Amino acid sequence: MQKSVVIVGGGAGKRMNSDIPKQFLLLKGKPMLMQTISRFLLYDPDIRLILVLPENYFPLWQDLCDQYQFHHKIQLVAGGKERFYSVKNALEYVSGLIAVHDAVRPLVSEMAIGKAFSLAAEKGNAVPVIPANESLRIQHEEGNQPLDRSKVLVVQTPQVFRYELLKEAYKQKFKPEFTDDATVVESLGHKIFTTDGNPENIKITTPMDMKLAELYLSDPRFD
Amino acid sequence: MQKSVVIVGGGAGKRMNSDIPKQFLLLKGKPMLMQTISRFLLYDPDIRLILVLPENYFPLWQDLCDQYQFHHKIQLVAGGKERFYSVKNALEYVSGLIAVHDAVRPLVSEMAIGKAFSLAAEKGNAVPVIPANESLRIQHEEGNQPLDRSKVLVVQTPQVFRYELLKEAYKQKFKPEFTDDATVVESLGHKIFTTDGNPENIKITTPMDMKLAELYLSDPRFD
Repeated sequence: MQKSVVIVGGGAGKRMNSDIPKQFLLLKGKPMLMQTISRFLLYDPDIRLILVLPENYFPLWQDLCDQYQFHHKIQLVAGGKERFYSVKNALEYVSGLIAVHDAVRPLVSEMAIGKAFSLAAEKGNAVPVIPANESLRIQHEEGNQPLDRSKVLVVQTPQVFRYELLKEAYKQKFKPEFTDDATVVESLGHKIFTTDGNPENIKITTPMDMKLAELYLSDPRFD
Repeated sequence: MQKSVVIVGGGAGKRMNSDIPKQFLLLKGKPMLMQTISRFLLYDPDIRLILVLPENYFPLWQDLCDQYQFHHKIQLVAGGKERFYSVKNALEYVSGLIAVHDAVRPLVSEMAIGKAFSLAAEKGNAVPVIPANESLRIQHEEGNQPLDRSKVLVVQTPQVFRYELLKEAYKQKFKPEFTDDATVVESLGHKIFTTDGNPENIKITTPMDMKLAELYLSDPRFD
């Protein structure tokens, strides 16, 4: 079955005069986005690549591709005002099995990608998760109470879906509780299936995360 | 009010022939345990120090203190077979306000320590927490569902308590759901109060955590 990956790198309204978004920063000598895309090419050199970016960053991306001689066939798609609309915009370029992945997760392993595609082929959807490894509490109106962490799953990407399922799900009207693709699909009443993520697959949002990512990338497994 | 900190560094049954526990490893040129203890001395040079270790590691600790000229007045206490018994063993050496802290959390900030002591002085207990910054799901019998992460708190130490409260709580029989001191106190029906932890205050359990801790410690805030 045809495989596609939608790399979600931000929506509309991101101004060029603010800091350059993390996904363009250099990580081990290469823009993070290229590291992220390379993970999927390593998994399947024939995967279809769709990259969602704020439209005003298209020229920067093209310049970087020239500079780093990163010449893969990549469909650029303009981001929407919410992540929901960004993914929805990308759906007209895909078919078969669709992975949706955060641009700022360059440390996803080939194994995690492979497991998610395999499970989604079988069940229709697959969400990579890792165990929660810290003590947790949950707030309620009167205070807070312990949360059994053995039942808590930390959600990652790529979340993989059969095209028909994702397309149908994204016909819904946007709701604020759609925090990822799983919640959009779940809202149609579908059961979500989980698979093993990899612990290194952090979402890079702070300068310290960048340093941690450099550390991980210095590990031979990521060479 | 007299302040004490119980540094919990492991229980009975830890063999010398296995790997040296993380708390003795060097972190920025000093055994981790000394980094951890130093945080509390920075907060209050007069704080009473109680260190719970597996009894067979007492000689190693003494050697390290000589080697690193770490000569503070520290009460050594032998660990029990569960963390619960380790803390309980330490309680005969404390009074006033008691902080209980994981030995493998050397990155706690002075501010987090200070806030926890202040709140506990006022309310009787205080538990440092940070927000959950990842998407979460919760498992139940039929599958799993999204968990509103805005309501989830990640629990850290030091957890601080008034002596009488902690002493009373530790008269209970051990239950497996006693995963930290807050759960022991809560089991008596007391409400738990939360305060701001610091995000760097990770629990060091893996070699990668060690590297991350080195990164954090290279930050001027930790000098």
